[in-house]
Amino acid sequence: MSGFGEATAVRRVGDGRYEADLDGAYGFAEALNGGYLMAVLGRAAVDASPHAHPISTAAGFHRVAKPGPALLVVEPRKEGRTTASALVSLVQHDRTVVDALIITGTLDAAAEPAYAGAAPAPVPPIEECTEFRPPTGAGFADQVDMRFDRTTMGWLDGQPSGSPEIRAWFRLRDGYAPDGHSLALAVDALPPVALNLGAQGWAPTVELTWHMRAVPAPGWLAVHGTGRLLSDGWFDEEVEVWDTAGRLVAQSRQIARVPRARS
Amino acid sequence: MSGFGEATAVRRVGDGRYEADLDGAYGFAEALNGGYLMAVLGRAAVDASPHAHPISTAAGFHRVAKPGPALLVVEPRKEGRTTASALVSLVQHDRTVVDALIITGTLDAAAEPAYAGAAPAPVPPIEECTEFRPPTGAGFADQVDMRFDRTTMGWLDGQPSGSPEIRAWFRLRDGYAPDGHSLALAVDALPPVALNLGAQGWAPTVELTWHMRAVPAPGWLAVHGTGRLLSDGWFDEEVEVWDTAGRLVAQSRQIARVPRARS
Repeated sequence: MSGFGEATAVRRVGDGRYEADLDGAYGFAEALNGGYLMAVLGRAAVDASPHAHPISTAAGFHRVAKPGPALLVVEPRKEGRTTASALVSLVQHDRTVVDALIITGTLDAAAEPAYAGAAPAPVPPIEECTEFRPPTGAGFADQVDMRFDRTTMGWLDGQPSGSPEIRAWFRLRDGYAPDGHSLALAVDALPPVALNLGAQGWAPTVELTWHMRAVPAPGWLAVHGTGRLLSDGWFDEEVEVWDTAGRLVAQSRQIARVPRARS
Repeated sequence: MSGFGEATAVRRVGDGRYEADLDGAYGFAEALNGGYLMAVLGRAAVDASPHAHPISTAAGFHRVAKPGPALLVVEPRKEGRTTASALVSLVQHDRTVVDALIITGTLDAAAEPAYAGAAPAPVPPIEECTEFRPPTGAGFADQVDMRFDRTTMGWLDGQPSGSPEIRAWFRLRDGYAPDGHSLALAVDALPPVALNLGAQGWAPTVELTWHMRAVPAPGWLAVHGTGRLLSDGWFDEEVEVWDTAGRLVAQSRQIARVPRARS
Protein backbone atom coordinates (compact mmCIF):
# COMPACT_ATOMS: atom_id res chain seq x y z
CA MET A 1 0.00 0.00 0.00
CA SER A 2 1.08 3.57 -0.45
CA GLY A 3 -0.23 6.69 1.16
CA PHE A 4 -2.62 7.45 3.94
CA GLY A 5 -5.65 7.62 1.65
CA GLU A 6 -5.12 4.12 0.36
CA ALA A 7 -4.16 2.71 3.77
CA THR A 8 -7.46 3.92 5.26
CA ALA A 9 -9.70 3.09 2.29
CA VAL A 10 -12.91 1.15 2.82
CA ARG A 11 -14.87 -0.84 0.22
CA ARG A 12 -18.64 -1.06 0.54
CA VAL A 13 -19.67 -4.71 0.38
CA GLY A 14 -23.28 -4.47 1.53
CA ASP A 15 -25.79 -2.39 3.42
CA GLY A 16 -23.72 -0.77 6.19
CA ARG A 17 -20.87 -3.22 5.64
CA TYR A 18 -17.38 -2.30 4.50
CA GLU A 19 -14.08 -4.10 4.13
CA ALA A 20 -10.67 -2.64 4.83
CA ASP A 21 -7.14 -3.97 4.62
CA LEU A 22 -5.38 -2.64 7.71
CA ASP A 23 -1.85 -1.50 6.97
CA GLY A 24 0.83 -2.59 9.41
CA ALA A 25 2.83 0.52 8.55
CA TYR A 26 0.53 2.51 10.89
CA GLY A 27 1.53 0.71 14.02
CA PHE A 28 4.18 -0.10 16.52
CA ALA A 29 5.31 -3.70 16.27
CA GLU A 30 2.09 -5.67 15.73
CA ALA A 31 -0.33 -3.20 17.35
CA LEU A 32 -2.03 -0.74 15.04
CA ASN A 33 -2.35 2.89 16.09
CA GLY A 34 -5.74 3.88 17.50
CA GLY A 35 -5.87 7.08 15.45
CA TYR A 36 -5.32 5.07 12.28
CA LEU A 37 -8.21 2.78 13.25
CA MET A 38 -10.44 5.81 13.94
CA ALA A 39 -9.60 7.15 10.47
CA VAL A 40 -10.76 3.86 8.92
CA LEU A 41 -13.94 3.90 11.06
CA GLY A 42 -14.52 7.53 10.07
CA ARG A 43 -14.31 6.75 6.37
CA ALA A 44 -17.00 4.09 6.72
CA ALA A 45 -19.20 6.45 8.77
CA VAL A 46 -18.88 9.30 6.26
CA ASP A 47 -19.50 6.97 3.31
CA ALA A 48 -22.73 5.77 4.92
CA SER A 49 -23.84 9.32 5.79
CA PRO A 50 -25.16 12.22 3.70
CA HIS A 51 -22.70 14.48 5.55
CA ALA A 52 -19.04 15.18 4.80
CA HIS A 53 -17.14 15.23 8.11
CA PRO A 54 -16.64 13.08 11.20
CA ILE A 55 -17.69 15.77 13.69
CA SER A 56 -17.57 13.60 16.81
CA THR A 57 -15.97 10.19 17.34
CA ALA A 58 -16.11 8.30 20.65
CA ALA A 59 -14.15 5.06 20.39
CA GLY A 60 -13.70 2.16 22.80
CA PHE A 61 -10.61 0.04 22.16
CA HIS A 62 -11.38 -3.48 23.30
CA ARG A 63 -8.57 -5.47 21.69
CA VAL A 64 -5.40 -4.96 19.67
CA ALA A 65 -6.06 -4.63 15.94
CA LYS A 66 -3.72 -6.52 13.63
CA PRO A 67 -2.61 -5.75 10.09
CA GLY A 68 -4.78 -7.44 7.46
CA PRO A 69 -8.46 -7.70 6.56
CA ALA A 70 -11.13 -6.12 8.75
CA LEU A 71 -14.88 -5.73 8.53
CA LEU A 72 -16.59 -2.43 9.35
CA VAL A 73 -20.22 -2.56 10.40
CA VAL A 74 -22.15 0.73 10.33
CA GLU A 75 -25.42 0.79 12.23
CA PRO A 76 -27.28 4.08 11.58
CA ARG A 77 -28.98 5.53 14.64
CA LYS A 78 -30.34 8.85 13.48
CA GLU A 79 -30.24 10.88 10.31
CA GLY A 80 -31.06 14.55 10.48
CA ARG A 81 -30.60 17.67 8.42
CA THR A 82 -27.45 18.81 10.23
CA THR A 83 -26.12 15.55 11.69
CA ALA A 84 -26.30 11.80 11.37
CA SER A 85 -25.28 9.31 14.08
CA ALA A 86 -24.08 5.76 13.72
CA LEU A 87 -22.46 3.00 15.71
CA VAL A 88 -19.45 1.74 13.80
CA SER A 89 -17.63 -1.45 14.76
CA LEU A 90 -14.34 -2.82 13.50
CA VAL A 91 -14.34 -6.60 13.50
CA GLN A 92 -11.45 -9.03 12.97
CA HIS A 93 -11.77 -12.81 13.19
CA ASP A 94 -15.39 -12.42 14.36
CA ARG A 95 -14.36 -10.33 17.37
CA THR A 96 -15.16 -6.66 17.84
CA VAL A 97 -11.88 -4.79 18.16
CA VAL A 98 -13.15 -1.20 18.31
CA ASP A 99 -16.62 0.29 18.76
CA ALA A 100 -17.25 3.92 17.94
CA LEU A 101 -20.17 6.29 18.13
CA ILE A 102 -19.62 8.61 15.17
CA ILE A 103 -21.61 11.76 14.49
CA THR A 104 -21.21 13.14 11.01
CA GLY A 105 -22.04 16.63 9.79
CA THR A 106 -20.75 19.14 7.30
CA LEU A 107 -18.52 21.96 8.46
CA ASP A 108 -18.28 25.21 6.54
CA ALA A 109 -14.64 25.77 5.54
CA ALA A 110 -15.29 29.54 5.55
CA ALA A 111 -16.81 29.68 9.05
CA GLU A 112 -15.38 32.35 11.34
CA PRO A 113 -15.37 31.44 15.05
CA ALA A 114 -17.79 33.42 17.20
CA TYR A 115 -15.48 32.64 20.14
CA ALA A 116 -12.08 30.98 20.32
CA GLY A 117 -10.17 30.40 23.52
CA ALA A 118 -6.49 31.24 23.79
CA ALA A 119 -4.06 28.97 21.98
CA PRO A 120 -1.80 26.84 24.18
CA ALA A 121 1.93 27.55 24.53
CA PRO A 122 3.29 27.45 20.98
CA VAL A 123 5.33 24.61 19.56
CA PRO A 124 8.83 25.99 18.85
CA PRO A 125 9.81 26.61 15.21
CA ILE A 126 10.17 23.35 13.27
CA GLU A 127 13.91 23.76 12.76
CA GLU A 128 14.38 23.87 16.54
CA CYS A 129 12.37 20.68 17.08
CA THR A 130 13.61 17.12 17.17
CA GLU A 131 12.58 13.91 15.42
CA PHE A 132 11.95 10.74 17.36
CA ARG A 133 11.70 7.19 16.09
CA PRO A 134 10.49 4.73 18.70
CA PRO A 135 12.76 1.75 19.24
CA THR A 136 9.87 -0.71 18.73
CA GLY A 137 9.97 -0.36 14.95
CA ALA A 138 9.78 2.66 12.71
CA GLY A 139 6.54 1.79 10.87
CA PHE A 140 4.53 4.71 12.18
CA ALA A 141 7.41 7.19 11.96
CA ASP A 142 7.93 6.20 8.31
CA GLN A 143 4.39 7.41 7.58
CA VAL A 144 4.11 10.38 9.91
CA ASP A 145 6.63 13.19 10.13
CA MET A 146 6.64 14.58 13.66
CA ARG A 147 8.95 17.22 15.10
CA PHE A 148 8.93 17.44 18.87
CA ASP A 149 9.48 20.32 21.25
CA ARG A 150 12.71 19.14 22.91
CA THR A 151 11.65 20.50 26.28
CA THR A 152 8.80 17.96 26.34
CA MET A 153 10.94 14.94 25.41
CA GLY A 154 13.20 14.62 28.45
CA TRP A 155 11.69 11.20 29.23
CA LEU A 156 13.63 9.85 26.23
CA ASP A 157 16.86 10.42 28.16
CA GLY A 158 15.49 9.22 31.47
CA GLN A 159 14.75 12.79 32.54
CA PRO A 160 10.95 13.17 32.47
CA SER A 161 9.99 16.82 32.86
CA GLY A 162 7.49 16.11 35.64
CA SER A 163 4.84 17.94 33.61
CA PRO A 164 2.45 15.83 31.50
CA GLU A 165 2.94 17.76 28.27
CA ILE A 166 4.22 16.84 24.83
CA ARG A 167 4.13 19.22 21.84
CA ALA A 168 4.94 18.45 18.23
CA TRP A 169 4.43 19.37 14.60
CA PHE A 170 2.64 16.72 12.55
CA ARG A 171 2.27 15.94 8.86
CA LEU A 172 1.95 12.89 6.67
CA ARG A 173 5.12 12.12 4.73
CA ASP A 174 3.18 11.31 1.55
CA GLY A 175 1.88 14.88 1.25
CA TYR A 176 -1.72 13.95 2.14
CA ALA A 177 -3.39 17.26 3.01
CA PRO A 178 -5.00 17.57 6.46
CA ASP A 179 -8.66 16.56 6.57
CA GLY A 180 -11.11 14.95 8.99
CA HIS A 181 -9.49 11.56 8.55
CA SER A 182 -5.89 12.62 9.10
CA LEU A 183 -7.04 14.60 12.16
CA ALA A 184 -8.14 11.25 13.64
CA LEU A 185 -4.52 10.17 13.28
CA ALA A 186 -3.17 13.43 14.70
CA VAL A 187 -5.13 13.27 17.96
CA ASP A 188 -3.57 9.88 18.81
CA ALA A 189 -0.07 10.31 17.39
CA LEU A 190 1.88 11.59 20.40
CA PRO A 191 3.74 9.32 22.80
CA PRO A 192 1.77 9.10 26.09
CA VAL A 193 2.21 12.37 28.00
CA ALA A 194 2.41 10.26 31.18
CA LEU A 195 5.97 9.35 30.09
CA ASN A 196 6.91 12.80 31.41
CA LEU A 197 5.64 11.71 34.83
CA GLY A 198 7.94 8.70 34.91
CA ALA A 199 5.44 6.17 33.60
CA GLN A 200 7.15 3.24 31.94
CA GLY A 201 6.21 1.59 28.69
CA TRP A 202 3.21 2.03 26.46
CA ALA A 203 -0.18 3.08 27.82
CA PRO A 204 -3.10 1.26 26.19
CA THR A 205 -5.93 3.63 25.28
CA VAL A 206 -9.22 2.43 26.71
CA GLU A 207 -11.46 5.18 25.34
CA LEU A 208 -10.79 8.20 23.14
CA THR A 209 -13.30 10.85 22.09
CA TRP A 210 -12.35 13.50 19.56
CA HIS A 211 -14.20 16.29 17.81
CA MET A 212 -13.41 17.86 14.45
CA ARG A 213 -13.95 21.59 14.98
CA ALA A 214 -12.94 23.13 11.65
CA VAL A 215 -11.76 22.18 8.18
CA PRO A 216 -7.95 22.28 8.52
CA ALA A 217 -5.77 24.45 6.30
CA PRO A 218 -2.97 22.77 4.30
CA GLY A 219 0.42 22.35 5.91
CA TRP A 220 1.80 21.30 9.26
CA LEU A 221 -0.49 20.72 12.23
CA ALA A 222 0.55 21.73 15.75
CA VAL A 223 -0.33 18.98 18.25
CA HIS A 224 -0.51 19.85 21.94
CA GLY A 225 -0.87 17.03 24.48
CA THR A 226 -1.56 17.52 28.18
CA GLY A 227 -2.99 15.55 31.10
CA ARG A 228 -4.81 16.34 34.33
CA LEU A 229 -4.62 13.33 36.63
CA LEU A 230 -2.64 10.14 37.04
CA SER A 231 -4.26 8.07 39.77
CA ASP A 232 -5.19 4.49 40.52
CA GLY A 233 -3.62 3.25 37.27
CA TRP A 234 -5.66 5.61 35.09
CA PHE A 235 -4.47 8.61 33.15
CA ASP A 236 -6.26 11.16 30.96
CA GLU A 237 -4.68 12.82 27.97
CA GLU A 238 -6.07 15.86 26.15
CA VAL A 239 -4.89 16.81 22.69
CA GLU A 240 -5.57 19.99 20.77
CA VAL A 241 -4.68 20.24 17.09
CA TRP A 242 -4.17 23.70 15.58
CA ASP A 243 -3.64 24.38 11.88
CA THR A 244 -1.39 26.86 10.04
CA ALA A 245 -4.27 29.36 9.91
CA GLY A 246 -4.23 29.47 13.73
CA ARG A 247 -7.49 27.56 14.16
CA LEU A 248 -8.37 24.88 16.69
CA VAL A 249 -9.28 22.10 14.25
CA ALA A 250 -9.56 19.08 16.57
CA GLN A 251 -9.74 18.34 20.28
CA SER A 252 -9.61 15.01 22.06
CA ARG A 253 -9.47 13.34 25.41
CA GLN A 254 -8.48 9.77 26.03
CA ILE A 255 -8.39 7.67 29.14
CA ALA A 256 -5.65 5.09 29.35
CA ARG A 257 -4.18 2.55 31.71
CA VAL A 258 -0.73 3.31 33.00
CA PRO A 259 1.21 0.11 33.63
CA ARG A 260 3.71 1.54 36.06
CA ALA A 261 4.79 4.98 37.28
CA ARG A 262 7.68 6.07 39.41
CA SER A 263 6.40 8.27 42.19
CA MET B 1 -40.87 8.64 43.12
CA SER B 2 -38.61 9.99 45.76
CA GLY B 3 -34.90 10.40 45.73
CA PHE B 4 -32.19 10.10 43.14
CA GLY B 5 -31.54 6.43 43.89
CA GLU B 6 -35.11 5.44 43.19
CA ALA B 7 -35.45 7.76 40.18
CA THR B 8 -32.47 6.13 38.49
CA ALA B 9 -33.21 2.52 39.49
CA VAL B 10 -33.20 -0.22 36.88
CA ARG B 11 -34.90 -3.64 37.08
CA ARG B 12 -33.27 -6.59 35.33
CA VAL B 13 -35.88 -8.28 33.13
CA GLY B 14 -33.66 -10.56 31.07
CA ASP B 15 -30.15 -11.17 29.84
CA GLY B 16 -28.73 -7.66 29.36
CA ARG B 17 -32.20 -6.14 29.49
CA TYR B 18 -33.42 -3.69 32.11
CA GLU B 19 -36.48 -1.57 32.63
CA ALA B 20 -36.55 1.91 34.12
CA ASP B 21 -39.28 4.41 34.86
CA LEU B 22 -37.87 7.78 33.86
CA ASP B 23 -38.76 10.50 36.33
CA GLY B 24 -39.95 13.80 34.85
CA ALA B 25 -38.62 15.60 37.92
CA TYR B 26 -35.11 15.39 36.37
CA GLY B 27 -35.89 17.52 33.37
CA PHE B 28 -36.79 20.87 31.99
CA ALA B 29 -40.33 20.94 30.64
CA GLU B 30 -40.73 17.58 28.84
CA ALA B 31 -37.04 16.99 28.06
CA LEU B 32 -35.12 14.85 30.52
CA ASN B 33 -31.63 15.91 31.55
CA GLY B 34 -28.80 14.10 29.77
CA GLY B 35 -26.87 13.55 33.00
CA TYR B 36 -29.90 11.87 34.54
CA LEU B 37 -30.15 9.56 31.53
CA MET B 38 -26.44 8.73 31.82
CA ALA B 39 -26.96 7.83 35.47
CA VAL B 40 -29.70 5.37 34.46
CA LEU B 41 -27.49 3.92 31.71
CA GLY B 42 -24.63 3.66 34.19
CA ARG B 43 -26.71 1.68 36.67
CA ALA B 44 -27.56 -0.88 33.99
CA ALA B 45 -23.90 -1.08 32.89
CA VAL B 46 -22.63 -1.58 36.46
CA ASP B 47 -25.33 -4.16 37.23
CA ALA B 48 -24.30 -6.18 34.17
CA SER B 49 -20.58 -5.89 35.02
CA PRO B 50 -18.37 -7.51 37.68
CA HIS B 51 -16.96 -4.03 38.40
CA ALA B 52 -18.27 -1.29 40.66
CA HIS B 53 -17.86 2.04 38.87
CA PRO B 54 -18.74 3.68 35.54
CA ILE B 55 -15.14 4.70 34.69
CA SER B 56 -15.85 6.04 31.21
CA THR B 57 -19.16 6.91 29.54
CA ALA B 58 -19.44 8.20 25.97
CA ALA B 59 -23.06 8.99 25.14
CA GLY B 60 -24.75 10.06 21.92
CA PHE B 61 -28.08 11.81 22.38
CA HIS B 62 -30.22 11.07 19.34
CA ARG B 63 -33.66 12.09 20.53
CA VAL B 64 -35.40 13.71 23.49
CA ALA B 65 -36.19 11.25 26.28
CA LYS B 66 -39.63 11.53 27.88
CA PRO B 67 -40.77 10.69 31.38
CA GLY B 68 -42.14 7.15 31.69
CA PRO B 69 -41.04 3.60 30.90
CA ALA B 70 -37.79 2.93 29.11
CA LEU B 71 -35.88 -0.19 28.13
CA LEU B 72 -32.12 -0.47 28.66
CA VAL B 73 -30.23 -2.91 26.45
CA VAL B 74 -26.70 -3.84 27.56
CA GLU B 75 -24.50 -5.49 24.97
CA PRO B 76 -21.23 -6.67 26.55
CA ARG B 77 -18.16 -6.13 24.37
CA LYS B 78 -15.26 -7.19 26.54
CA GLU B 79 -14.81 -8.38 30.07
CA GLY B 80 -11.35 -8.21 31.59
CA ARG B 81 -9.76 -8.29 34.99
CA THR B 82 -9.59 -4.51 35.40
CA THR B 83 -12.30 -3.31 33.03
CA ALA B 84 -15.43 -4.40 31.20
CA SER B 85 -16.93 -2.64 28.17
CA ALA B 86 -20.51 -2.56 26.98
CA LEU B 87 -22.75 -0.74 24.57
CA VAL B 88 -25.81 0.43 26.46
CA SER B 89 -28.88 1.80 24.67
CA LEU B 90 -31.92 3.52 26.09
CA VAL B 91 -35.04 2.74 24.07
CA GLN B 92 -38.50 4.33 24.22
CA HIS B 93 -41.37 3.40 21.91
CA ASP B 94 -39.00 1.14 19.92
CA ARG B 95 -36.66 4.03 19.12
CA THR B 96 -33.11 4.39 20.44
CA VAL B 97 -32.93 7.63 22.38
CA VAL B 98 -29.37 7.41 23.74
CA ASP B 99 -26.45 5.12 22.94
CA ALA B 100 -23.50 4.91 25.28
CA LEU B 101 -20.20 3.11 25.33
CA ILE B 102 -19.61 2.45 29.02
CA ILE B 103 -16.39 1.10 30.50
CA THR B 104 -16.71 -0.16 34.05
CA GLY B 105 -13.94 -0.77 36.54
CA THR B 106 -13.36 -0.54 40.26
CA LEU B 107 -11.62 2.50 41.69
CA ASP B 108 -9.77 2.33 44.99
CA ALA B 109 -11.27 4.88 47.39
CA ALA B 110 -7.91 5.13 49.15
CA ALA B 111 -5.84 5.79 46.00
CA GLU B 112 -3.45 8.74 46.21
CA PRO B 113 -2.86 10.56 42.90
CA ALA B 114 0.63 10.12 41.44
CA TYR B 115 0.03 13.43 39.62
CA ALA B 116 -2.77 15.98 39.84
CA GLY B 117 -2.93 19.16 37.78
CA ALA B 118 -3.78 22.47 39.38
CA ALA B 119 -7.38 23.03 40.42
CA PRO B 120 -9.33 25.62 38.43
CA ALA B 121 -10.28 29.01 39.90
CA PRO B 122 -12.25 28.20 43.06
CA VAL B 123 -16.01 28.52 43.36
CA PRO B 124 -16.68 31.29 45.92
CA PRO B 125 -17.95 30.27 49.38
CA ILE B 126 -21.47 28.86 49.22
CA GLU B 127 -22.99 31.73 51.19
CA GLU B 128 -21.73 34.18 48.54
CA CYS B 129 -23.26 32.16 45.70
CA THR B 130 -26.70 32.48 44.17
CA GLU B 131 -29.49 30.04 43.43
CA PHE B 132 -31.10 29.92 40.01
CA ARG B 133 -34.35 28.29 38.98
CA PRO B 134 -34.88 28.21 35.24
CA PRO B 135 -38.13 29.74 34.03
CA THR B 136 -39.03 26.61 32.07
CA GLY B 137 -40.17 24.74 35.16
CA ALA B 138 -38.44 24.00 38.40
CA GLY B 139 -38.38 20.18 38.16
CA PHE B 140 -34.61 19.81 38.01
CA ALA B 141 -33.95 22.56 40.55
CA ASP B 142 -36.32 20.82 42.98
CA GLN B 143 -34.02 17.79 42.91
CA VAL B 144 -30.63 19.42 42.62
CA ASP B 145 -29.36 22.18 44.88
CA MET B 146 -26.95 24.36 42.94
CA ARG B 147 -25.28 27.58 44.12
CA PHE B 148 -23.72 29.62 41.36
CA ASP B 149 -20.74 31.94 41.28
CA ARG B 150 -22.53 35.23 40.55
CA THR B 151 -19.71 36.46 38.32
CA THR B 152 -20.51 33.64 35.87
CA MET B 153 -24.27 34.27 35.75
CA GLY B 154 -24.42 37.70 34.07
CA TRP B 155 -26.26 36.15 31.11
CA LEU B 156 -29.33 35.87 33.36
CA ASP B 157 -29.60 39.67 33.37
CA GLY B 158 -28.76 40.08 29.70
CA GLN B 159 -25.12 40.77 30.52
CA PRO B 160 -23.16 37.71 29.41
CA SER B 161 -19.59 37.87 30.72
CA GLY B 162 -18.06 37.15 27.32
CA SER B 163 -16.12 34.30 28.89
CA PRO B 164 -17.55 30.76 28.50
CA GLU B 165 -17.37 29.82 32.17
CA ILE B 166 -19.95 28.83 34.76
CA ARG B 167 -19.04 27.65 38.28
CA ALA B 168 -21.35 26.22 40.92
CA TRP B 169 -21.70 24.06 44.00
CA PHE B 170 -23.81 20.94 43.48
CA ARG B 171 -25.63 18.50 45.74
CA LEU B 172 -28.78 16.43 45.65
CA ARG B 173 -31.53 17.82 47.88
CA ASP B 174 -32.47 14.35 49.14
CA GLY B 175 -29.08 13.88 50.80
CA TYR B 176 -27.94 11.22 48.32
CA ALA B 177 -24.18 10.98 48.84
CA PRO B 178 -21.96 11.58 45.78
CA ASP B 179 -21.11 8.43 43.82
CA GLY B 180 -20.45 7.40 40.25
CA HIS B 181 -24.11 7.79 39.35
CA SER B 182 -24.65 11.25 40.79
CA LEU B 183 -21.39 12.35 39.12
CA ALA B 184 -23.11 11.57 35.80
CA LEU B 185 -25.74 14.11 36.80
CA ALA B 186 -23.16 16.66 37.97
CA VAL B 187 -21.22 16.77 34.68
CA ASP B 188 -24.37 17.81 32.77
CA ALA B 189 -26.10 19.99 35.36
CA LEU B 190 -24.82 23.47 34.46
CA PRO B 191 -26.63 25.81 32.10
CA PRO B 192 -24.74 25.91 28.78
CA VAL B 193 -21.56 27.97 29.23
CA ALA B 194 -22.22 29.40 25.74
CA LEU B 195 -24.93 31.54 27.37
CA ASN B 196 -22.05 33.73 28.55
CA LEU B 197 -21.13 34.30 24.90
CA GLY B 198 -24.58 35.61 24.06
CA ALA B 199 -26.01 32.33 22.79
CA GLN B 200 -29.79 32.25 23.11
CA GLY B 201 -31.92 29.39 24.36
CA TRP B 202 -31.02 25.83 25.21
CA ALA B 203 -28.17 24.01 23.50
CA PRO B 204 -28.95 20.38 22.70
CA THR B 205 -26.08 18.06 23.63
CA VAL B 206 -25.09 15.88 20.71
CA GLU B 207 -22.33 13.88 22.41
CA LEU B 208 -20.97 13.86 25.96
CA THR B 209 -18.07 11.80 27.26
CA TRP B 210 -17.23 11.75 30.94
CA HIS B 211 -14.78 9.88 33.12
CA MET B 212 -15.06 9.05 36.80
CA ARG B 213 -11.58 9.66 38.20
CA ALA B 214 -11.99 9.02 41.93
CA VAL B 215 -14.55 7.93 44.50
CA PRO B 216 -16.04 11.24 45.67
CA ALA B 217 -16.03 12.29 49.32
CA PRO B 218 -19.38 13.16 50.95
CA GLY B 219 -20.66 16.72 50.73
CA TRP B 220 -20.89 19.44 48.13
CA LEU B 221 -19.26 19.03 44.74
CA ALA B 222 -17.62 21.97 42.96
CA VAL B 223 -18.57 22.01 39.28
CA HIS B 224 -16.43 24.03 36.85
CA GLY B 225 -17.66 24.52 33.29
CA THR B 226 -15.60 26.03 30.46
CA GLY B 227 -15.50 26.03 26.67
CA ARG B 228 -12.87 26.43 23.97
CA LEU B 229 -14.59 27.20 20.67
CA LEU B 230 -17.94 28.39 19.37
CA SER B 231 -17.92 28.11 15.59
CA ASP B 232 -20.18 27.01 12.76
CA GLY B 233 -23.06 26.29 15.15
CA TRP B 234 -21.00 23.92 17.33
CA PHE B 235 -19.79 24.48 20.87
CA ASP B 236 -17.71 22.37 23.23
CA GLU B 237 -18.14 22.40 26.98
CA GLU B 238 -15.69 20.92 29.48
CA VAL B 239 -16.71 20.22 33.07
CA GLU B 240 -14.50 19.29 35.98
CA VAL B 241 -16.03 18.10 39.24
CA TRP B 242 -13.97 18.42 42.43
CA ASP B 243 -14.98 17.00 45.80
CA THR B 244 -14.63 18.38 49.34
CA ALA B 245 -11.35 16.45 49.73
CA GLY B 246 -9.89 18.55 46.91
CA ARG B 247 -9.85 15.75 44.37
CA LEU B 248 -10.74 15.81 40.68
CA VAL B 249 -13.50 13.20 40.72
CA ALA B 250 -15.00 13.59 37.24
CA GLN B 251 -14.17 15.28 33.96
CA SER B 252 -16.31 15.66 30.86
CA ARG B 253 -16.52 17.23 27.46
CA GLN B 254 -19.65 17.63 25.43
CA ILE B 255 -20.28 18.93 21.97
CA ALA B 256 -23.53 20.77 21.43
CA ARG B 257 -25.40 22.71 18.79
CA VAL B 258 -25.86 26.37 19.49
CA PRO B 259 -29.10 27.62 18.00
CA ARG B 260 -28.15 31.28 17.80
CA ALA B 261 -25.37 33.51 19.11
CA ARG B 262 -25.01 37.27 19.12
CA SER B 263 -21.61 38.13 17.71
